[in-house]
Amino acid sequence: MADPLVLFMPSGKRGRFPRGMPVLEAARQLGVHIESVCGGRGICGRCQIDVQEGQFAKHGITSAADHLSPFGAKEQRYSELRELKAGRRLSCSATIEGDLVVDVPQDVVINAQVVRKSASGRTIERNPAVHLCFVEVEEPDMAKPSGDADRLVAALSRDWRFERLEIDFGLLAGLQSTLRAGKWSVTAAIHDEPQLGPPRVIALWPGLKNEAYGIACDIGSTTIAMHLVSLLSGRIAASAGTTNPQIRFGEDLMSRVSYVMMNPSGRADMTAAVRGAINDLIGKVTSEASVSAQDVLDCVFVGNPIMHHLFLGIDPTELGGAPFALAVSGQVHARAADIGLDVNPGARLYTLPCIAGHVGADAAGVTLAEGPHRQDEMMLVVDIGTNAEIVLGNRARTLACSSPTGPAFEGAEISSGQRAAPGAIERVRIDGETLEPRYRVIGVEPWSDEPGFAEAAGPIGVTGICGSGIIEVVAEMFLAGVISEDGVIDGSLAARSPRIVANGRTYSYVLKTGEPLITVTQNDVRAIQLAKAALYAGVKLLMQKHGVAAVDRIRLAGAFGSFIDPKYAMVLGLIPDCALDRVAAAGNAAGEGALMALLNRDHRREIEAAVRRIEKIETALEPDFQALFVNAMALPNKTDAFPNLSAAVRLPERPAATAGEAATGGRRRRARA
Amino acid sequence: MADPLVLFMPSGKRGRFPRGMPVLEAARQLGVHIESVCGGRGICGRCQIDVQEGQFAKHGITSAADHLSPFGAKEQRYSELRELKAGRRLSCSATIEGDLVVDVPQDVVINAQVVRKSASGRTIERNPAVHLCFVEVEEPDMAKPSGDADRLVAALSRDWRFERLEIDFGLLAGLQSTLRAGKWSVTAAIHDEPQLGPPRVIALWPGLKNEAYGIACDIGSTTIAMHLVSLLSGRIAASAGTTNPQIRFGEDLMSRVSYVMMNPSGRADMTAAVRGAINDLIGKVTSEASVSAQDVLDCVFVGNPIMHHLFLGIDPTELGGAPFALAVSGQVHARAADIGLDVNPGARLYTLPCIAGHVGADAAGVTLAEGPHRQDEMMLVVDIGTNAEIVLGNRARTLACSSPTGPAFEGAEISSGQRAAPGAIERVRIDGETLEPRYRVIGVEPWSDEPGFAEAAGPIGVTGICGSGIIEVVAEMFLAGVISEDGVIDGSLAARSPRIVANGRTYSYVLKTGEPLITVTQNDVRAIQLAKAALYAGVKLLMQKHGVAAVDRIRLAGAFGSFIDPKYAMVLGLIPDCALDRVAAAGNAAGEGALMALLNRDHRREIEAAVRRIEKIETALEPDFQALFVNAMALPNKTDAFPNLSAAVRLPERPAATAGEAATGGRRRRARA
Repeated sequence: MADPLVLFMPSGKRGRFPRGMPVLEAARQLGVHIESVCGGRGICGRCQIDVQEGQFAKHGITSAADHLSPFGAKEQRYSELRELKAGRRLSCSATIEGDLVVDVPQDVVINAQVVRKSASGRTIERNPAVHLCFVEVEEPDMAKPSGDADRLVAALSRDWRFERLEIDFGLLAGLQSTLRAGKWSVTAAIHDEPQLGPPRVIALWPGLKNEAYGIACDIGSTTIAMHLVSLLSGRIAASAGTTNPQIRFGEDLMSRVSYVMMNPSGRADMTAAVRGAINDLIGKVTSEASVSAQDVLDCVFVGNPIMHHLFLGIDPTELGGAPFALAVSGQVHARAADIGLDVNPGARLYTLPCIAGHVGADAAGVTLAEGPHRQDEMMLVVDIGTNAEIVLGNRARTLACSSPTGPAFEGAEISSGQRAAPGAIERVRIDGETLEPRYRVIGVEPWSDEPGFAEAAGPIGVTGICGSGIIEVVAEMFLAGVISEDGVIDGSLAARSPRIVANGRTYSYVLKTGEPLITVTQNDVRAIQLAKAALYAGVKLLMQKHGVAAVDRIRLAGAFGSFIDPKYAMVLGLIPDCALDRVAAAGNAAGEGALMALLNRDHRREIEAAVRRIEKIETALEPDFQALFVNAMALPNKTDAFPNLSAAVRLPERPAATAGEAATGGRRRRARA
Repeated sequence: MADPLVLFMPSGKRGRFPRGMPVLEAARQLGVHIESVCGGRGICGRCQIDVQEGQFAKHGITSAADHLSPFGAKEQRYSELRELKAGRRLSCSATIEGDLVVDVPQDVVINAQVVRKSASGRTIERNPAVHLCFVEVEEPDMAKPSGDADRLVAALSRDWRFERLEIDFGLLAGLQSTLRAGKWSVTAAIHDEPQLGPPRVIALWPGLKNEAYGIACDIGSTTIAMHLVSLLSGRIAASAGTTNPQIRFGEDLMSRVSYVMMNPSGRADMTAAVRGAINDLIGKVTSEASVSAQDVLDCVFVGNPIMHHLFLGIDPTELGGAPFALAVSGQVHARAADIGLDVNPGARLYTLPCIAGHVGADAAGVTLAEGPHRQDEMMLVVDIGTNAEIVLGNRARTLACSSPTGPAFEGAEISSGQRAAPGAIERVRIDGETLEPRYRVIGVEPWSDEPGFAEAAGPIGVTGICGSGIIEVVAEMFLAGVISEDGVIDGSLAARSPRIVANGRTYSYVLKTGEPLITVTQNDVRAIQLAKAALYAGVKLLMQKHGVAAVDRIRLAGAFGSFIDPKYAMVLGLIPDCALDRVAAAGNAAGEGALMALLNRDHRREIEAAVRRIEKIETALEPDFQALFVNAMALPNKTDAFPNLSAAVRLPERPAATAGEAATGGRRRRARA
């Protein structure tokens, strides 16, 4: 009779194992990650499994009765002490007696969410760098003198199969009292990152410790966002964000670099500011989740190169000018204490690698989360900020570059521009006939032409246009014929509509009359054209390098990417043509990448390898970039066709003078596709 | 034609290598450690060799002419810039052109001593855990963006053949400026301890750095002794010692443990005291050698378990009572900064393992230096202090124990006892006929019965008896028949000599009349008997366990061991019988062991493995110990014969009542030997 077949879900891993083997042991042999803090003593309850009778037939397993050992003494004891849900078994105790389909639930912690999914819907399998190991240590024996630390290591090695194990020096002073407080039973937190050497004991608690947390943090120039995550269940226990206090030293990245260059204590001030804000966030998420900061054992950070350097205490001045040299581009491992984080003194810190001088660990996080390097399809990932980080590729080959879009998309350099905040116009429609606009304001439900708008807008009223509003108003002006393909506001329309007004030697479009008057000036349009041309030229450069004429999928990362409408982004020519339903926002993909690296160290190896393989393109060194930039000034583009967009939106006819060239290009590409 | 034969001295390693290969490369392939900081660029001058024509015939190499390439351009440049001694060549430049005998001189540093020899005469081959690597790093390149740190690692890996290399986090902040200050040429200090993981860059200097130091330190309860050593040449640059300031918390170990137990800040006070003293010593040795403390990159410490724990910041209370549990018995790796040492911030720290709760890292250092585990002979190593640490064994099997000798040997508990200091009697002879003594005093050349003694003794005069004096006076009293085999001062002699005086119900021996009166009382003799019996019983216990009746060689470690005369130690029965010329002092063998571990990391692995293998005997658990102790109260011993001693010294006849048994035992053993 063949050994029973055991199938683990959701991983689908399967194998045959002898009768009588604990299910946990079979899982380990297959590499199925079932958490067990107590090492099979039936104490921690972490190794719970579900054996679902109904699933058997569908997996080709025909009989289910008595395929698992009866409820044993360890399970009995555990269920009396701590409750075991109906149907749940402890896999350290339940043994294989026949074919089985085993569900590995991810919810053994109260309130756990079922499975951690990435923003792109992927499940994050847990395999964190830090895990807990409960162990019973031999008591000291005069006849066999060996140190407490040495007996701890021996016990961990024996029960948890470590070949070599080191102990953090900082633990030695407290080791004796912890072992005695736990009556020689302790839980060790083990940091196991093979690239750093043997696993290390980084924290120790008396008795059974059944919870460990990590933080995943995205340090943006404007906003710092943090998740507090259970390393044992993957559950996000709390999330919080805060303004990056470095803003007081300079709004944008370059002014922060200038501050460092001009002030002797500039670098130190900036570093202290960002670390302080991160400690405040740690305080916030831990108190929100009623978790002790001492239980935070691992921390993963992403950020653009300048944020990354300042956070790590490195002078970012070199990043302010060519050759934009990073002090360190690879992943950084440190101790959280090295940078003064208010977490467990033994906690570790990991930053994702930076891709290039302008394409940082945040872009690496986005890449990890969105995974162009995991796709067969050609995927474009764009993170739009003062610089746009662009990653294009698939499983075979991935390229990345940064393009200097400037701050226009963030509302700066725009006459009525403002940050995304209550009062800001975020959506715009312009009637093609009357050229009358209607718009929607952040925090206000009705559109401007709908009843109750003024009441809903309240005392704040309408204060300006935010980034997504600017995209839409310029795109709508183009669609309505107010601006031409080359971005000129058509002054002749002033005769037809009071919305077109002279402004010196150029014209403006009046989006809102009254106080404040909100107009889109010719300069505003030019600023948007410059910004979008930079982005588009970067994308095109990568497409040329990759030798592709079209992309299969576009992901817009970051806050800005979440708010803009893909259609308008395409009308304006921020992004190349693509089926509209295959363009989507990726949310805070950088933070999601940090989360993935926190929950599974294999993802660290994955992104480290991916970043090494990514071909880094420096736009400033590319002779073609200028021509691509000039072509990209036109709306949507001077030479590229947008067949998918044209099918969805009626684009204005191109003037005969330039249409021939563009149409030819467009036809050629359409024919290829 | 066969490839040329190359023989390296003093290691004797040899091999055949193709013509044209640099000698340095051949050395590396054979594992001959020739230092090269610059990696064969002809800059550092560290790889100098001597090719001695005269040695050829003796090694069977017949012809010497033109067997080495002519003086090359790199050598020319080096000799112009920095001087190259006659006959010296740079092995990175000189290539093999025929059979060669290559001398690897150890003196390339000014003032270097030829070879580091251990106290026992062994050469310490250098293979330190920290070494320097000069490297030229690629400049940043926008077209190939990678971080400064990453290019540094790439260059080191390429030139120095590291497979994986990590950089200390603390170096990242200063990396950019160091690389630029050195115009992309830097010297990295690499800490390579395979048991901790991949090698790590721990310090970095612009340009070529040609000197690195380490400290080896023995933390005694009374004295702290330190060597400052060049890691590149093995030269001891300076040595210094200081009183352990913990003495103000308690003279002996147990009173220091009591202090920790009684005072809330006791442990912290003691730790701060010893670390402060060590930092003072670091200041002393570095300033004496005109070396920057920043150039100290590795530190090795030994000490007894309580000193070891207090130095590492660990509470020693558990060592104050059974089961005498060490917090950690294995080797400890840390950063010098972890304990606040004033050396390079990246410097590392290593403590030798402790053998047992009473047999510490100092005993491990003694073992490493004396090497019973490397001998074919049966070697006894004894380190006498308040506890005697005893190691007995050979290559096949080594045992260790500690025996509580008490403070008598240090002059405490002795009526006229004092520390070894000017004024203390250190040598004694007693005339067997007249019972008149003569003695020698520390710091005074003539003996007490020689002309000019009083003048030489000066105002200090004679103040007491130190440890070695006590050994001698009691032994001489025994040899002169003043005390019997069982240690009783023979009061009947008072009739014959005024030196024997009644003292209550017992008698004393007057060693010095006048002021101060210095006598040896019956209680003094008893105290010495108890101390020596403890030591001897420990030795005998190990001999019984090992199944040997005699030892081939005895080494007396520590300060006390250096001052006592082996003959008197044997007359008294501190140590078992042995050929007198095979009993020797080992000096500060513990410190020597620390030095060996500093200069060659293989010695770390050696002592770690040896300590794991050593059989630890706890005298308190041994039923035979008490009987051995009782027998050992007699002088030299109740049951053991001392054939070697008897041949050298006329021992008093044993009384008939007990002589039979002893003589039989003695004959039996003599017959076996």
